[in-house]
Formats: sequence, structure tokens, C-alpha cells
Amino acid sequence: MVAAMSDTVQAIRWENNHLVLLDQRILPRDIRYLSLDTCQETTQAIKDMVVRGAPAIGISAAYGIVLAARQRWRESPATWRQNLQQDLEELAASRPTAVNLFWAIDKMRRIIEKLPVGQNPEKALLEAAQQIHRDDIEANKTMGELGAALINQPCAVLTHCNAGALATGGYGTALGVIRSASAAGNVQHVFADETRPWLQGARLTAWEMVQENIPVTLLCEGASAWLMRQKKVAWVIVGADRIAANGDVANKIGTYNLAVNARHHGVKMMVVAPTTTIDMEIADGSAIPIEQRSQDEVLNVNGQPMAATGADAWNPAFDVTPAALIDAIVTERGVIFQPDSVKMAAVMENG
Amino acid sequence: MVAAMSDTVQAIRWENNHLVLLDQRILPRDIRYLSLDTCQETTQAIKDMVVRGAPAIGISAAYGIVLAARQRWRESPATWRQNLQQDLEELAASRPTAVNLFWAIDKMRRIIEKLPVGQNPEKALLEAAQQIHRDDIEANKTMGELGAALINQPCAVLTHCNAGALATGGYGTALGVIRSASAAGNVQHVFADETRPWLQGARLTAWEMVQENIPVTLLCEGASAWLMRQKKVAWVIVGADRIAANGDVANKIGTYNLAVNARHHGVKMMVVAPTTTIDMEIADGSAIPIEQRSQDEVLNVNGQPMAATGADAWNPAFDVTPAALIDAIVTERGVIFQPDSVKMAAVMENG
Repeated sequence: MVAAMSDTVQAIRWENNHLVLLDQRILPRDIRYLSLDTCQETTQAIKDMVVRGAPAIGISAAYGIVLAARQRWRESPATWRQNLQQDLEELAASRPTAVNLFWAIDKMRRIIEKLPVGQNPEKALLEAAQQIHRDDIEANKTMGELGAALINQPCAVLTHCNAGALATGGYGTALGVIRSASAAGNVQHVFADETRPWLQGARLTAWEMVQENIPVTLLCEGASAWLMRQKKVAWVIVGADRIAANGDVANKIGTYNLAVNARHHGVKMMVVAPTTTIDMEIADGSAIPIEQRSQDEVLNVNGQPMAATGADAWNPAFDVTPAALIDAIVTERGVIFQPDSVKMAAVMENG
Repeated sequence: MVAAMSDTVQAIRWENNHLVLLDQRILPRDIRYLSLDTCQETTQAIKDMVVRGAPAIGISAAYGIVLAARQRWRESPATWRQNLQQDLEELAASRPTAVNLFWAIDKMRRIIEKLPVGQNPEKALLEAAQQIHRDDIEANKTMGELGAALINQPCAVLTHCNAGALATGGYGTALGVIRSASAAGNVQHVFADETRPWLQGARLTAWEMVQENIPVTLLCEGASAWLMRQKKVAWVIVGADRIAANGDVANKIGTYNLAVNARHHGVKMMVVAPTTTIDMEIADGSAIPIEQRSQDEVLNVNGQPMAATGADAWNPAFDVTPAALIDAIVTERGVIFQPDSVKMAAVMENG
């Protein structure tokens, strides 16, 4: 199924009582939507990166729980709540780093616990999932404005991975700021790391920027320091998968590399993430679980073996950037400059 | 033609009066040698990266000049020397950054100028080219020992691109040090950047290390800072394409990124290059011409378009690492610690 592109990219839709996901593994070559009927399918889609990006994973999980509740209620209205636990556990085990997944599961779990015995849960849970989805888009637009306000003169920026509409409910976190700042005339050019091994930058970020008519130039990660050396960028702007209570940021592997280089070159570092990405139960980044993905993602390119046989590969999906290297964390509740535990707590108490 | 692998990888051979090059574009999938009969073919092979790596380019160029002289002599013993000039110019225009190319052309040109009128130039030029080739291997072995002596306890190291036997006359520069230090028991594990866009690390360095039974783990460039953060490497060891008189080093794009990160993490940075890579006529790195290669190398992967249509790409083939970020430049004439103009000049006068 190929859909006409609207002015806003939609990675996640609820349609005809199904969760419909844009298959991000085959973008931009093919625009194909998968229609999911069960929570198991949703768990698998998150594992396989049909959908990726911390907020998008959280939203998809919320819809997946709607599917789970519907299935379990159909099977047994008397025991659906117990039977659902297995679905929630499997969903929680799909990917370890993005905390939005656990946040969404917890939020849905609290609603499930409060539902009266004997009530079909589907409607209430669907409303909750759709509210999570709407709230995320609204948060992104707020962050877009707050982040764009930090960019007060025309410049180029560098982004990494994809923290756009495809990674969220819509509009995007880092790309939301870039959209807003571009509309304001201050982001004039976007440099995007291609983001090996999965090429989210080349495949997804470039695709979103082209659709928005924002000039975008790809580069290999190795070239980013040389780009900064030539003073071609004023800001590095990225999303996050989990932010610890002290402001340490887990994000796509390569982010920490950019942060070290940004500091070295006097380029500012902005992290854009909704408060659903902040994990106040983790004191600092050292406790954030980092997903190790299959070495095949590095050893093969485009499904073809590229590396010498006999070599192995190290493929952490994320790294942790210490708060000390971050100039601003932009949330929907406000901007945290030079983040630390005290400032993070102040913003989170403000919710 | 598939050759059995000997204990030393040979990228360049003179065989049956032809220049025989191992086609590095298709390694490690296919081991195929191209047999070249003309200087034009040699120029094209350098442009197309059949052969790459600064010393290997220089050696190939020297052999290419043998082929040119043979052809021009056959065509016209009276005017071969004038007719050859065009070949030398085309050869010099093949790739701009590696200075070994220009060094080899100059060296061969001086021999050409001294040849008596009426003498068939082939024998003398072949001897000169073979001497350049032998000298390079010998320099690599000397550098291997000198560099390995700097690694005085068992550790892991990180390398970038391929500065191995494939990039040189044999043995390698950075990988020569790694070979020697591995033999001494001090390099226990090699981490190798895959080195986008051409994947020299995944395809060539990994291949060389596997053949030597040196444990090698590939990573994407973006992961290198995270690797250093986890203190998994003691040294970054790389080659060079051109070193300026003050010790600034042009090398494969991504090297500067590693140097910034190495300094940030207290990892030592070693550059290994023969004095043929040092360009004393260039005061500092800002004057080194940096080759910009086709954006298709970034936009396509494995010959297939991967990036979104409408995006462009920035694809500098090299970057420049300031001398201040380098702990040691290892040459066959000695090690230059914390390089600067005075120390560089002292080593070069020592030749």
C-alpha cells in the first residue's frame, strides 16, 4: 500500500481498529504501511525497527496494549487482566534503552488497574493511547518553539540519526526544532550524519527534510569533526532515548562523539526530548541499559556481507553523553541550560 | 584469477613486464588482479581506487612511469622524453592529496632527465621503481619496530581506514606497527573503524588482520568515542596521506575526529608514515589540497541508492589533524614526539 505523502509524515496511525505503522526499514525506497492486529505483532515490529525512535516506540506500545486488551477480553472477559500481563512483559522486553516504552506501559497499566471489573477495556485504553499520541505531537510543537528560540541568527545545524516526525507521534523532537527554526528563517541548512549502521540519517532524516524543502546535506559520521572545524555549523541538535536524573543523555550511537567534538570546536549541543524520555529513577547515565544489537548490522550492508570473514563487530545501539557536554535540554516544560540534577528535578516537579 | 594468499598480502607486483594490481574495490569478496600495460591504465586505476593508500599510490605511479617510458620509446626513440610529459601530467592529476604520488613522479623524472640520449629507458626506470618499492617495504618494517617499541604493555588499539600491506609496498604503516606490536605480545586486540564511505576498515583492514590471526573487531565511526570512553583502547594508530612541515597530518576522513576524541579521553595518537609522505614545502595543514570525491559514494551503498532523493552529500576524502593532537609521528628515520616544525626539520635533514 502506497499512500500519498501529506504535509506531515505519519509513522503511526490508528485506523479501522488496527495499529498502522509506516515500515521504516524500507524507507525511502518503499512507502509501505503494516497493519497490526495484535500486541505480539507490535512487539515484533518494535524489535525489528519497523518503528523506532523513543517517543514513537512509546506511542506504538500504548496502541499495542489496546490490541492486547481487545484480544484478551475476547478470549476471556473474566481473566483478561491477568492474561494481559504476559503481553506487557513481552512488550517491555522488546528494546531496553528508550524509556518512553516503559513510561507508556506504566501509564497504560495504571489505567488498566483502575478499570471496573466486567468492563470492556478497549475504549478507555484506546482513548488513553490516542491521548499519549496527541500529547506527544503537542509536546513536539512546544519544544519546536522553545528550541528554535535558542537559535537567534541564520546558521547551519548538524543532526544525527532521525529524531523527526518518524521517530515521534509527529513533527519530531530535534527535527521539530529544526522545522520551527527553519520556518523562522534561522536554520538555513541541515547537515545530517548518515548514521551507520542503520542509516537513519540518510534514509529518514534526509527524506523528512526533502519533503519540507529544507536543504539537507548528508555526511559520514567520520566527517563531522572536520565539518565543525570548518565552522559550518552553529548547533548540534539531537533527540534522546533516555535522560537520567542528572541530565546525562542516552541517544543513538555517535551522539557522544558529536558532543565531544562540539565542545572542542565551540559548537553548541542541544538535546530535544519530551519529559516522557526523562527517567528520574536513574541517577546518572552509567545505569542506563545500552542495547547491543546484532553485529550483522555492521558486517553486512544492504543485506550483503561487506566485511572480511572472520572479523567480528561491536554494535552498541546507543551511547551516553554526560550532562557536562550538553548546553541545553529542551523539554515541553521548558529549557534546561547546562543540565544538572537540581535543574532537572525542578523541571520535572513542574509537571 | 584467484591467487592463494601468501603470508604477506601483495597489492602491487611487477610480473611478466606488467604492473599487476590487486583490485581493492572488490575485496574481500573477490581476489582479482588486474594486469596493466600502460600508464593511462595506471592513472585510471589510481583514480578508481583499484589501488589506494599513499605509499601504494606512489609505488604504482613509479611502475606506471616504466610503462609510459616503454610505450613512448616504442613509438619514438627520438622523442620519447617529450612525449612522456603528458603521461606524467595525467598521472599527477589522478589524485590530489597523497604526496607520495608527486614524490614518486619527481624521483622518476629526475632519473629520466639524466638518462643518456638514445638509451632505452625501461631497464633503468624499472630498477628505480623496484627500488622505491623495496625501500617502502623496508621503511615499513623499520617503522613497525619503532612504533611497536612505543607500546610497552599489552593493550587494544584502534585504527582507521587501511594503512596496511594493501596501502603500501607491503607490511603496512599503521598495520605494520600493529603487526610488530602483536608479534611482541603487546597489541592483543585491534578495533577497526569500518571507514565509510569506502569501508576500507571493514573490507581491507579486517581482511589483513584475519590473515595474520590478529583479533579484530569492527565498529562504526560514530562508536569510536564511546569505545574510548570505556577505556578499551590505549592507542589510536593511523597512516597518513600527506604530512606538512609542522607535523599537521592529512589522512582519511575521520582521522581528525579520532584525534579530538583521543585527546579528550587520554588515548594516545600515533601516526605512522614514511618520509616520502612528508611534504616540507607545505608549512602547515591548511595548504594541503583535500580531495572531494563524488557524493554518490555516500548516497549509494553497495551501488544501490540508499539516501532520500533530493538530499546531497559532502564527501571530503581526507581531513587534517593538527600536530598538537598527535603524540608521535613514526617515520623510518625515527619517532617525532609532539611534532612541530623544528623536530620535523631535524628528522628530514637527517635523511
